[in-house]
Amino acid sequence: MLKFEIATSRGPARTGRLTLTHGAVRTPVFMPCASLATVKACPAPSVEATGIEMLVANAYHLWQRPGHEVVRALGGLHRFMGWERAILTDSGGFQVFSLQELRKVDDGGVTFRSHLDGSEHRFTPELVVEIQEQLGSDIAMVLDECASPFDRNYNLEAIRRTHLWAERCLRAHSRTDQALFGIVQGGIFEDLRAESARVLAGMGFPGYAIGGLSVGESKEDMHRILEHTVPLLPADKPRYLMGVGSPEDLLECTARGIDLFDCVLPTRLARNGAVFTPEGRLNLRNAAHSEDPRPIQEGCPCYTCRNFSRAYLRHLTMSGEILGLRLNTIHNIHFLLTLMSDIRQAVLEGGFAAFKEAFLSRYRVADPKAREDNRRLWEVRDRS
Amino acid sequence: MLKFEIATSRGPARTGRLTLTHGAVRTPVFMPCASLATVKACPAPSVEATGIEMLVANAYHLWQRPGHEVVRALGGLHRFMGWERAILTDSGGFQVFSLQELRKVDDGGVTFRSHLDGSEHRFTPELVVEIQEQLGSDIAMVLDECASPFDRNYNLEAIRRTHLWAERCLRAHSRTDQALFGIVQGGIFEDLRAESARVLAGMGFPGYAIGGLSVGESKEDMHRILEHTVPLLPADKPRYLMGVGSPEDLLECTARGIDLFDCVLPTRLARNGAVFTPEGRLNLRNAAHSEDPRPIQEGCPCYTCRNFSRAYLRHLTMSGEILGLRLNTIHNIHFLLTLMSDIRQAVLEGGFAAFKEAFLSRYRVADPKAREDNRRLWEVRDRS
Repeated sequence: MLKFEIATSRGPARTGRLTLTHGAVRTPVFMPCASLATVKACPAPSVEATGIEMLVANAYHLWQRPGHEVVRALGGLHRFMGWERAILTDSGGFQVFSLQELRKVDDGGVTFRSHLDGSEHRFTPELVVEIQEQLGSDIAMVLDECASPFDRNYNLEAIRRTHLWAERCLRAHSRTDQALFGIVQGGIFEDLRAESARVLAGMGFPGYAIGGLSVGESKEDMHRILEHTVPLLPADKPRYLMGVGSPEDLLECTARGIDLFDCVLPTRLARNGAVFTPEGRLNLRNAAHSEDPRPIQEGCPCYTCRNFSRAYLRHLTMSGEILGLRLNTIHNIHFLLTLMSDIRQAVLEGGFAAFKEAFLSRYRVADPKAREDNRRLWEVRDRS
Repeated sequence: MLKFEIATSRGPARTGRLTLTHGAVRTPVFMPCASLATVKACPAPSVEATGIEMLVANAYHLWQRPGHEVVRALGGLHRFMGWERAILTDSGGFQVFSLQELRKVDDGGVTFRSHLDGSEHRFTPELVVEIQEQLGSDIAMVLDECASPFDRNYNLEAIRRTHLWAERCLRAHSRTDQALFGIVQGGIFEDLRAESARVLAGMGFPGYAIGGLSVGESKEDMHRILEHTVPLLPADKPRYLMGVGSPEDLLECTARGIDLFDCVLPTRLARNGAVFTPEGRLNLRNAAHSEDPRPIQEGCPCYTCRNFSRAYLRHLTMSGEILGLRLNTIHNIHFLLTLMSDIRQAVLEGGFAAFKEAFLSRYRVADPKAREDNRRLWEVRDRS
């Protein structure tokens, strides 16, 4: 159900191959989000059309719409959405805890009101395992408690509960064709992260996620926590950093030993008219592009760049045309997947540090304000 | 620049071949709307992906966004949008006259305020010809005055002005690789339609449109006017009925001698979750489809029906996912293009009357209320 082979590991950065029920992917891998069983504004998933090899769907969203039982009745998530490759499902813990005023947590589980209709529901470790087993993903995630990263007392309580729930998820989990990953919590506190990594590693999960990062803390905090946490996780298991996906973060976190990433960033930016280039983000709404016959990125082999000018993409974006959302999305996903492929190659060949430096010396990182605009994360819709 | 060959003509219905600068299409033909240089929610146009062979773009919309001069600077509309086949541009007369309180007409032209920003502008016959020549469409349309179909006095005045403008458009038109069509007006009044057809036919256009129908009058009125107008147009020229595109109308109007059709209906319905089947429209929002593993239409070879269930399409539609808009659009366009292909075959083989009867006996026409909901036409956005 899960095989992880590390081909090369130089310093913390490593590249390998993760084999799951629905095929293998090379790591480190970026997984676009298909929270509601579709990558927003993207072609129906096919490796040919998008280059995507693995997706992240969301148990909270699919439990609400169309319902996990419906998906199961239709043959499971792969068949439902017409996608034959690997899928990871998030448990929905992040979504439920982002409901803030709408939820109440106790050791048994979390009671919350739906963000769609206000109806009251309860998630327990057992239920989120059941939902994900019915969805039939290749990798399922435990229910965890996502605390504000800066609140030490809350994080102390949250990791206690997260560990309790992790154990219950393990006990409840029965599908042998699905791997269940644990999630390390602990905010920005090194000792709590260490404790969480130690306890979860002791439970023997086939893979480990690091949750509760990229939720408002500084880049420095994120890097520090990764540097303290990653070495405490079993070296032979895949490590998944949840919710991270900017080009600079993919490089910095690969450098710190991460194997799996997911983020809504490339698709959300695309729908806002922001597209990746080797020089940094380009805002297609800028009037400078209105008569520009060049593609987003010279030489990019993606469908969008092969066929359309910045001028046309700007026109579609300004007019709110759906084709624009789609073409921008195709490019952004292609950009990140190409970056991951280059990263893997560089690690394999021993040139990762040089590659990272060369990329970052050319790529102008979005300023903190622009980043902040894309980080209103304590809202359920924001990671869907 | 335009060659029209009629292969078969049995009664008024006929089938043939229209050859334009950017290739030939078989008639009768349905042309999806790409008002803003994209068919809404559709793949970037390629015959392979959509079956579309000819599009209708809109001079009013493209004059506003991105501007006809921008399109021209980028090599013309075909190159701008990456479409190599034939394009017809509407002059934008319909859009300007739909602005109601925002416009003022005199014999020289029409002054109006933009529906986007309220700025004041003036369209003259010469300007709409210039816009369309810069766009570089295969067929351009004259500027006409679209009156309420029931107001006799207004229509009397409107056809006088329409004829005046038609002559000025003809004089202004200079591109030899573009055909300019006249537009017959006259509301629901047979004598005014006859007068308009007579005057315009005398000007020797290479093709004729019938405007001002399907704008609120009854089906009976529309059929009656077609029966009186079509025979008065030159038999060897193509006839274009503007704004018509329901399956039943395509059959009834082909039966009355129409060669070209365009309408936003298939794409707008699709975005609302309504899809065509041989039995009539299906509303995907209906709970009955929530666990239905069947495609929209059994045996339909379109991409959507080959790959996705009603249940998945309903889920995407209910969740507002862009992929749903797209998949529904692909099916609806495929449905109408297949219908047109079947119509052409039936006319060619002499079985059109029987085909029409068989289709309509199976197809449940949407009730007048549902039709009305899709007919709030005196609004500029509604035909974009």
